[in-house]
Formats: sequence, structure tokens, C-alpha cells
Amino acid sequence: MPTITIIGLGLIGTSMGLAIKNSPIKNTTIIGHETHRETAIRSQKRGAVDKIERHLPTAIETAHLVILATPVMAMQTIFRDIAPHLKPGTIVTDTASTKSAVMQWADEILPTSVSFIGGHPMAGKTDSGPDAAEASLFTNAVYCLTPNKNADRPSVDAVEGLAKAVGSHPYFIDPGEHDGYVAGISHLPIALSTALVQATAKSPSWSEMSKLASSGFRDVSRLALGDPIMNHDIFVSNRTAISHWIAELVTELNEIQKLLEETPGETNDPAIQNLFRTVWERRINWMTGADAQENPLDALPSTAESLARSLAGEWVVRKLDDLDPFQEKSSNPNPDQPQRKRKGWLRR
Amino acid sequence: MPTITIIGLGLIGTSMGLAIKNSPIKNTTIIGHETHRETAIRSQKRGAVDKIERHLPTAIETAHLVILATPVMAMQTIFRDIAPHLKPGTIVTDTASTKSAVMQWADEILPTSVSFIGGHPMAGKTDSGPDAAEASLFTNAVYCLTPNKNADRPSVDAVEGLAKAVGSHPYFIDPGEHDGYVAGISHLPIALSTALVQATAKSPSWSEMSKLASSGFRDVSRLALGDPIMNHDIFVSNRTAISHWIAELVTELNEIQKLLEETPGETNDPAIQNLFRTVWERRINWMTGADAQENPLDALPSTAESLARSLAGEWVVRKLDDLDPFQEKSSNPNPDQPQRKRKGWLRR
Repeated sequence: MPTITIIGLGLIGTSMGLAIKNSPIKNTTIIGHETHRETAIRSQKRGAVDKIERHLPTAIETAHLVILATPVMAMQTIFRDIAPHLKPGTIVTDTASTKSAVMQWADEILPTSVSFIGGHPMAGKTDSGPDAAEASLFTNAVYCLTPNKNADRPSVDAVEGLAKAVGSHPYFIDPGEHDGYVAGISHLPIALSTALVQATAKSPSWSEMSKLASSGFRDVSRLALGDPIMNHDIFVSNRTAISHWIAELVTELNEIQKLLEETPGETNDPAIQNLFRTVWERRINWMTGADAQENPLDALPSTAESLARSLAGEWVVRKLDDLDPFQEKSSNPNPDQPQRKRKGWLRR
Repeated sequence: MPTITIIGLGLIGTSMGLAIKNSPIKNTTIIGHETHRETAIRSQKRGAVDKIERHLPTAIETAHLVILATPVMAMQTIFRDIAPHLKPGTIVTDTASTKSAVMQWADEILPTSVSFIGGHPMAGKTDSGPDAAEASLFTNAVYCLTPNKNADRPSVDAVEGLAKAVGSHPYFIDPGEHDGYVAGISHLPIALSTALVQATAKSPSWSEMSKLASSGFRDVSRLALGDPIMNHDIFVSNRTAISHWIAELVTELNEIQKLLEETPGETNDPAIQNLFRTVWERRINWMTGADAQENPLDALPSTAESLARSLAGEWVVRKLDDLDPFQEKSSNPNPDQPQRKRKGWLRR
């Protein structure tokens, strides 16, 4: 039975466990590893993992697939800790929000006999920890995949199958390109929420103002509620790209300020009308694109989609079995077949 | 039977009608006026108004209470159109997001025999129009009230009672102070959403980036979906205050950018950690304050609150009856009592 090990059982790790349990990936054992004992217990109680293994090398040494779901900056150390204990052929993936640093660490630290396929499911929520986890967290999300140069095709296919099995849309992308894009659409919004909270809550009028703050403030400042460690790790691992996007944003804010200041007293302002019409259209276009065209699976009827997910799930299990680096040791009734597949596996 | 006239039957006007119908304010007739025929019909179909009156002077000439729920910049013209037809003693209120300009127009245009109590329920949603309206839109919202100098106490009490009857928490505030505060917590978030959409969607990489955009981008850019006319009106009627807050925001963004750039390569950055911890705490404090302490009615048990709302509703109807400027003409079985109250009314 293939073994999947999830390292880090917070929101993403626990959701991943629940999503796999809820997916067509059957007959697998999920081992969880988590440094915070309380978090591990809650995650297991949610049903995300079959067992907890507190000793990291033991947690991964029988794994066919290892999923790192910790904050980005913890991953370098984890790679160092697990590298000597990973069996050849193990598939390793992660869920970090930035990919360049992780890919570099994987290249430097993991043995070449291991396939590392970086992953980033574009899904999340403000609440963190296993209690906030959901089996459906990744449904219809874009799931970025960044295979390293050692990754063989069957391993890449397996992680692609995992992404499909948990309901996501796999999307292969260059790590640097990924980090530049998410800096704009994911990290810049965090910077904006942060700056909004700082600008307003530091004001001497805040105690009065705060009473009036309502849904607009709530939504735009929501990302300030994100896990501070996660946000720190994202920002220090993607400094240049985020800084670039902050500069772009400031340019736009200056532009709006200019519109406000250059025609004082004007109550019918075509330039301001034009601004709000333009962003309204752009935002509508994004929604339409994201909902209809950009995610091709969304266009499938639900039964077809369900079938696709089901096939993907069976496929992942088969793939993990095919890729089993321990099959020589197992009491397989048909030793020829795994041997042949093992050869394929070793051909890399 | 007291008559309430709602001018403008979009999201707020229709929600107001539904909220009044759903409140303890009974035995009133609600007349709706709306320039777009289709919108008027949909609002009436939702049950927000008892009848539609397309001729504005006719719509308000029998009203005890007139509620303007149009975009801010339409209000000056509406004041001019209704001023000659308002009976002495009519109570006029509005729901605009900025208050200084509206208060000034009311002072300049409305007859002194009319009480104008500016209003701003701090509630809303992105979708506009009568179909998006909800009877519960104002539930637990702070409802800002800015009486003008002609407003008499009973009229102020009536509008305060209206705010309570629709489930809100009345909050008396100076118009200038209101506009400064909402510029920070309401209009600045709109500017941020707008700038975020502009900065990202104008990028040559947008077609690729947009595929990855997920809940963070969605929430922070949501306000760009607001009605462009409403947003235009808000921004042109609150230029100075919004410009001030944009400058404050840019200062904070520059600060974040400085943190990113001054320690390149540092993967454990106490200053960045500190930033995210600070905003996390501030955002939590806002939530706690807004949910528990700032809205005293929230602390009441639901039966007590319901009783309070009920009393407020009966009170509004009684007040509107008391203040009836047409009672001399009506066939009231007890002419003395209204006469006495009428005197009180005329004492202003």
C-alpha cells in the first residue's frame, strides 16, 4: 500500500490529508509529521492522517510521496533532515507560496535519485491550523507545478495526478515566473492589507474611526490576519518581486491622488468616471476569465469532471505503486512485474 | 397612516424599503421614486415599496419622511426639485457615503421648515440594484446621523428610531469628522482595490498572472466592482480627505518596500516579522472591538434587542403620526391632541 507522508499539519497539510482521503486516491497510508504536538493531535482527530510519526526520518523513510506543507523558510532545514533518509525514487513535493528558493534548496540538498516537483495550490483562507482545514480547499484551484531537473516523467505525472485528484487544475510554470506572478496577485494584496491596517490603526482618530469600519475595510484588510510567520517567510523569500509590485502600486495610487487634486471642486469628473469604469470592466473580465475560460475543467459537466477526478485518483495510486522503490522487499506475488517497472524507474 | 417616500430604488433604497417592511414600523405606506423604470418595477416586485410614483413632486408631497438613496451627486438636483413641494415639518434624510456636501446643499436648498437629518448606514455590498437588496442589510451596522441646524428634536428622534428599527446602531457625528473617518476606512479601501486592479491588469503578464489569482486578489480587489457612478460621486465629494489617506497609505507601502530592500538575502528578518505580528494584532483588535465593545447593542441578549427594536419601531410610527403636518386636514376623531402636538411641532 503506497505511503504518503505530510510534513506540517497546519491548514494546508491537514486540508491536503482530508482532500486525499476524500479523493479517488484509495488504499494509501497517510503519515503525518508536525513539530507542534497539539496541532498533530488535532489534525489526526480531523481524520487527515492515519498516524502521526514524531521522528522525521522515520516519518519519511517508507514514504512513496512526501508532501512538505510548512512555512517556506522551514523547508531548507527539513530538506537537510530528510535527505539522508529518502529512498531512491521517492517523490517529494511541497506547497510553498514561493518557488525559486525552494527549488534551489531542493537542487542543492536532495539526492539526485529523488524527484522533486515543487507545488503551489493557489488556495487558502485567513484562518490557520488544522481546525480551519477543509477537504474541498483545493477544489477548482490552480495548482502550480515546478518539477526540478531530476524529476522523471512518471513522478511528475504522479504529482500532476495528485493535484487533479484533490480537485485542482495542474499548471506547469517556471519557478521564477511563478514568483513574479504571485508577487503581483498574491503577495501585493498582503502588502496592501498590511499597509491599510498600519495607515488607519496608527491614526490618532482610530478609536473613533474603527467604529465606522465595515465590510469594505474588513475585506481589504483581511489578509493582515494571515499567519505572521507564513507572511514573513513569503516576503523574505520573494523580496525583489514584491518590491517591484509595491512600486507599481504606488504609481497607481499617485495617479489616483493626482486625479483628486488636479480638479478640486469639480463634481462631474470624466477622468475619475473613466478610472472607475475601467477597473470595473477589468475586474469583471478577470472574474469571467477565471470562472469560464481560464480553468478548462470548469467547463466540463460535473459528471465528466467527477470521472476525470476519479481516473486521476486511480492513476495516482497505480503510479505510486508502479514507482514503489521498496517493491523488491515486499512479498509481491508477481515479482516480475514490479521488477520491470523498477527498471523503468531506475532508467533515469 | 404615515407615508415614507424613498427616492432611488437601487441596493440601498430597496434594502431600506424591505428593512422597514420587515421592522416593527407598521401601518405606513412606502412610496418609491426611481428614474429608471425597470429598476422601479424590480424594486416593487421585491416588495420594498407599496407603490411607485414617477412624478417626483407627487412622490414627496404627502410624505412624512423622505429618504434619499441615490448617488451623492444626484442629491443637489433632487433637493432643488423637491424643496418647493415639501410640506412644513417633513423629515428628510439620506443615505449618502459622504456627508459634508449633502449637509451644505440641504442647508442651502431645503426650506427651514423641514428637518434634514443626514444619514449613512455603514453597510453595503458589491452587487448593486434592487435584486441584490436585503431586508437584513443594515442589521448591526453603525448608522451615522448628522442632523442639520433646523432639525428639531422629535424629527431627529424619528430618524434615530428608523435606524434602530432597521437593526442598526445610530451614531451621531459631525459631517466633516464623518467624511475624514470614512475616507480612511471606506474610501481608501476603494482606492486600494482600484490601484491593485490597475497595477496588475495593465501588466503585459496579466493574461498569465490572472490565471493564478485567487482568494487574496479576489477580496482585496473586490471594491473595484462597486458601481462606478457611486464611486465617482464618493471620490469627487471627498477629494481632500481621500487624498490625505492615500498619502498615508503610500508612506506605509514605502516603509514595507524599505524593509524588503534594506536586508537582501536575510531569511530571518525581525523587522518584517514584527510588521506582520503588529498588523495581525491590530486587525484582531479591530475585530474584537467591532464585534464586542463598539456596538453596545450587540452585547444585549437577542430577546432584549428584539424588544428594543420593537419599541423603536412603534416609537417611529407614533413619532411620524405625532409629527404629521397634514393632521389639520385629516378626519382625526380627537382634534385636540394633534393640535397640541402640532403646536409643539410649530414651536421651532
